[in-house]
Amino acid sequence: MKLLEDMIKKYGEVRPGNVLKVDGFLNHRIDVGLVKALGEELYKHFRSDKITKILTIESSGIAIAIMTAQCFGVPMVFAKKRKTINLSDDIYTAPVHSYTNNKDYDVMVSKDYIDKSDVLLIVDDFLANGCALRGLIDIAHQAGATVAGAGIAIEKGFQGGGDTLRAEGLKVVSLAVIDKMTDDSLEFRKSE
Amino acid sequence: MKLLEDMIKKYGEVRPGNVLKVDGFLNHRIDVGLVKALGEELYKHFRSDKITKILTIESSGIAIAIMTAQCFGVPMVFAKKRKTINLSDDIYTAPVHSYTNNKDYDVMVSKDYIDKSDVLLIVDDFLANGCALRGLIDIAHQAGATVAGAGIAIEKGFQGGGDTLRAEGLKVVSLAVIDKMTDDSLEFRKSE
Repeated sequence: MKLLEDMIKKYGEVRPGNVLKVDGFLNHRIDVGLVKALGEELYKHFRSDKITKILTIESSGIAIAIMTAQCFGVPMVFAKKRKTINLSDDIYTAPVHSYTNNKDYDVMVSKDYIDKSDVLLIVDDFLANGCALRGLIDIAHQAGATVAGAGIAIEKGFQGGGDTLRAEGLKVVSLAVIDKMTDDSLEFRKSE
Repeated sequence: MKLLEDMIKKYGEVRPGNVLKVDGFLNHRIDVGLVKALGEELYKHFRSDKITKILTIESSGIAIAIMTAQCFGVPMVFAKKRKTINLSDDIYTAPVHSYTNNKDYDVMVSKDYIDKSDVLLIVDDFLANGCALRGLIDIAHQAGATVAGAGIAIEKGFQGGGDTLRAEGLKVVSLAVIDKMTDDSLEFRKSE
């Protein structure tokens, strides 16, 4: 998606440890026109899939996910990373390893909000190793829900998580795929 | 706002410790039509205030804030509760006490994303004691920005934080104000 690739080229910053910082428009300061366009683009790719809910993970997936939910006219559910007083004990939970922050955590979704009648589109801002996405898929499967696919803003293609999931049969749509990243240059995968 | 009050009455659950659980439509599973309507309503109240940015706090403020930002056509910035590898060291920070989870934490906003030219509308899902809101106001003041006011979905009026801030001169617009809450009943403040 040209708009997103242009924003990454213009405002993205490469940091040590394969980190791409997009805090200026996607992760901390959010460009509302961009996230709306991302939602509309994901809608085009999954409009025939009878999506009943958008599933994401706090925090930086939420803005894209709610904009996507707006296009589909369905609710959005975000998985929680921390147990709060409000969360019931009746939850689906899955372990996730974050390479960015080098720690393990559990993602949690209340059993009240996903069930076997659901067809889920999983939305997130980043896909790298695929750990967070696999955690959400795990939760969807625990609920007996169908996963129609994953809609991602930025895939770090060189980390391989997206292609492995595609090879396993998952429909993964990433709006910008970075196949090579150095301090000075970014190489985007050509759209099919 | 009648739609919000109706949703609270229908789906809200009162829990011990003055907790109102609205996970079914606002905090975990998000009703996209509702949060869009909340954003439109906040726009009506602040449309003349020359807002340049919406400021909120992760995670449950984000969905309402991005919908509000969409109405204003301005960016949204969300304060972070955790230091991630992506966050620079050049940040504004303010301490906040969470009564709900009974702990202290710092809220953080990168200095890159708020400055003295900004007129901020602070948006959040809940206002109770006003601690989180005061933390965000503190950050806005550190940046030299103007705070036009606060737009809140649900104010727990009986906890007093909103009225104290109003008495201090802040424009606080809460779309549902609960003045009394027991296990069996909720009493909403009449709109002015």
